Amino acid sequence: MTPDNKPPVPDVTANRASRKWTRRELAERILWSILGHPIFRLSPRPLWGLRNGLLRLFGAKIGQQVRLHPTVKITIPRHLTIADGVGIGDGAILYALGPITIGTNATISQGAHLCAGTHDFRDPTMPLLKLPITIGDGAWICAEAFVGPNVTIGAMSVVGARCVAMKDVPPNAIMAGNPARQVGTR
Amino acid sequence: MTPDNKPPVPDVTANRASRKWTRRELAERILWSILGHPIFRLSPRPLWGLRNGLLRLFGAKIGQQVRLHPTVKITIPRHLTIADGVGIGDGAILYALGPITIGTNATISQGAHLCAGTHDFRDPTMPLLKLPITIGDGAWICAEAFVGPNVTIGAMSVVGARCVAMKDVPPNAIMAGNPARQVGTR
Amino acid sequence: MTPDNKPPVPDVTANRASRKWTRRELAERILWSILGHPIFRLSPRPLWGLRNGLLRLFGAKIGQQVRLHPTVKITIPRHLTIADGVGIGDGAILYALGPITIGTNATISQGAHLCAGTHDFRDPTMPLLKLPITIGDGAWICAEAFVGPNVTIGAMSVVGARCVAMKDVPPNAIMAGNPARQVGTR
Repeated sequence: MTPDNKPPVPDVTANRASRKWTRRELAERILWSILGHPIFRLSPRPLWGLRNGLLRLFGAKIGQQVRLHPTVKITIPRHLTIADGVGIGDGAILYALGPITIGTNATISQGAHLCAGTHDFRDPTMPLLKLPITIGDGAWICAEAFVGPNVTIGAMSVVGARCVAMKDVPPNAIMAGNPARQVGTR
Repeated sequence: MTPDNKPPVPDVTANRASRKWTRRELAERILWSILGHPIFRLSPRPLWGLRNGLLRLFGAKIGQQVRLHPTVKITIPRHLTIADGVGIGDGAILYALGPITIGTNATISQGAHLCAGTHDFRDPTMPLLKLPITIGDGAWICAEAFVGPNVTIGAMSVVGARCVAMKDVPPNAIMAGNPARQVGTR
Repeated sequence: MTPDNKPPVPDVTANRASRKWTRRELAERILWSILGHPIFRLSPRPLWGLRNGLLRLFGAKIGQQVRLHPTVKITIPRHLTIADGVGIGDGAILYALGPITIGTNATISQGAHLCAGTHDFRDPTMPLLKLPITIGDGAWICAEAFVGPNVTIGAMSVVGARCVAMKDVPPNAIMAGNPARQVGTR
């Protein structure tokens, strides 16, 4: 705050005026929010295939035997790559500003949040950063756990309930707490 | 991961094909989700008695002067035993895969999550575990706190806001943090 | 619990019978919940001005260029003072039992919870405490962070994703974890 040339507060006007999305991206986001997401949300729970098809229509890569609950919240389907056998529970959030990749037979439990975006708070215009998240094969992101932007979760690792992983997690690790600490090996 | 006979990832197909619920349980869950829960959810806030009656109809044991907000999410009403004078706030989650027992005059605040279920991640089929949660008389589970499976919270204890209790809490303890630590005595 | 004159459990009946709100406050809360909030909630996302106007109608002080998403949950609009340029994201909770003041160009991200109320658990009637929260100019309360009652967040500070701030945060601090710890300086 001391440098004279630094504004006293973030310049949100500059941030809001900045071009964060192409026209095509904007059109797709609006179409998803007014049409795609409502159909997804209101679809009966057993219609897993309908939801997978809808996501593919919006550009997502979805494998076989994938099960997303109707209450899963997805920001930009085109940024999703979901392998075979993945299950994603009630109210989980795939905040896919950047690409989210989920490996074979991984499980994302109810209320978990994969947050693939942030702001650069060192820059006074707080520019949006669209950063990737990768979940390894067979990993389990437990109930209401949080995975931050630019984080890779290793294959078979368990990120425990409500655990907050803001850094990479190695394979086969069992993590707990906020911030995440390794408490065991699978 | 080293034994040759262990699959590289969890066998979700085996898990999904496993018989987790009896026919009667399944029928009751479907009836709750398409009929019971919508009535509960849409009931006006002051109609505490209507919601209690509805839960009893679905097999819950509910005492006198119990107040559940309409936005409380309940997985299986039959697994609930709620004593007199209990209050449960906005958006609290009673994830009652296993039995949840709540003692006299206990308070469960908004957004708290009692998570009475997990998976055995040591087993490649990730079998569902339905484990009990017990909340002692007069205890207070504060806003958005989390109580894990197989956990007992002692009488009069306070599990602070956003605190994550994955182990038993003794009576009269004041807990905070993730993971939960005792920070005082009531 | 040892003193003989202390009840074994909180006296919730006394608590519920206590007069927590004036008639005017009660009328306003009911009007907000059955009319104001539904309009707010169902308004299309780009209609930022409509939501600001609605909050002002219910007694909130809202500056210029303020952007609240339709899914923001507000308990009592009259208790809000929001300065110019503030943005509040998807599903953030302004639990304004006490006054909540948010400074110029501050950002409150998706799912953040400002919890301006608690109970005095040392008193057997568990009386409601309506306590203030103040967010400084240019501060950023990140995704799903939690700010407790009676807490002031200093200007330009960053309360990280899922961080739980139950004590005051100085200006320019970068906080993380539950409980919150300072991990850097902006």
